[in-house]
Amino acid sequence: MTSDRLTSTFAALADPTRRAILARLVAGEASVTELAEPFEMSLPAVSKHLKVLERAGLIARGREAQWRPCRIETNALRDVDDWLERYRRLWEERLDRLEDYLTELQAKERKRDRKK
Amino acid sequence: MTSDRLTSTFAALADPTRRAILARLVAGEASVTELAEPFEMSLPAVSKHLKVLERAGLIARGREAQWRPCRIETNALRDVDDWLERYRRLWEERLDRLEDYLTELQAKERKRDRKK
Repeated sequence: MTSDRLTSTFAALADPTRRAILARLVAGEASVTELAEPFEMSLPAVSKHLKVLERAGLIARGREAQWRPCRIETNALRDVDDWLERYRRLWEERLDRLEDYLTELQAKERKRDRKK
Repeated sequence: MTSDRLTSTFAALADPTRRAILARLVAGEASVTELAEPFEMSLPAVSKHLKVLERAGLIARGREAQWRPCRIETNALRDVDDWLERYRRLWEERLDRLEDYLTELQAKERKRDRKK
């Protein structure tokens, strides 16, 4: 995966309508008409969003001329997941430190209680 | 978390330099000058990227007038991680189905071998 691929994936995801289209496709394949319905958008407007998603490798489209069903391609999203990995470690470490701190506080609390 | 927050996070991440700045900050806090060094960029150019990252909630900056160290804020990245969750299930399911299919193939293979 090149850095540019990740850039176009993030750019494609930086739009609520495109994310809503992806969310709809979790339920299964859908045609442009089916995808356009909940958004009250014109077919050309939806097609434009689909092209961005397709170019970013987030969806793939069937070859049938009449009904070109869209489906999610998971590879680009897995790249995002891989990219997140090092940051995930970061917040897990921070949570661990917070937990250590709380445990320490509770230990001090108990010690103080025993002295009473 | 509103949908707009996620949009500005993804937009901020759709740039290789900004992702490189984040990657550098995993190692710890850094000043604008320190961040500018590896990129051979002007300080104003780096400052511009930092502003985008800060507005998206991806970094926070210290209050000291002279040295305003930047550090990663993990909340926005955790929102991305949460958003990914439903898609993660999708590719895990696909991998499971692939595994089932391979197991089935192997079983058929063994059956054929026994018949020989």
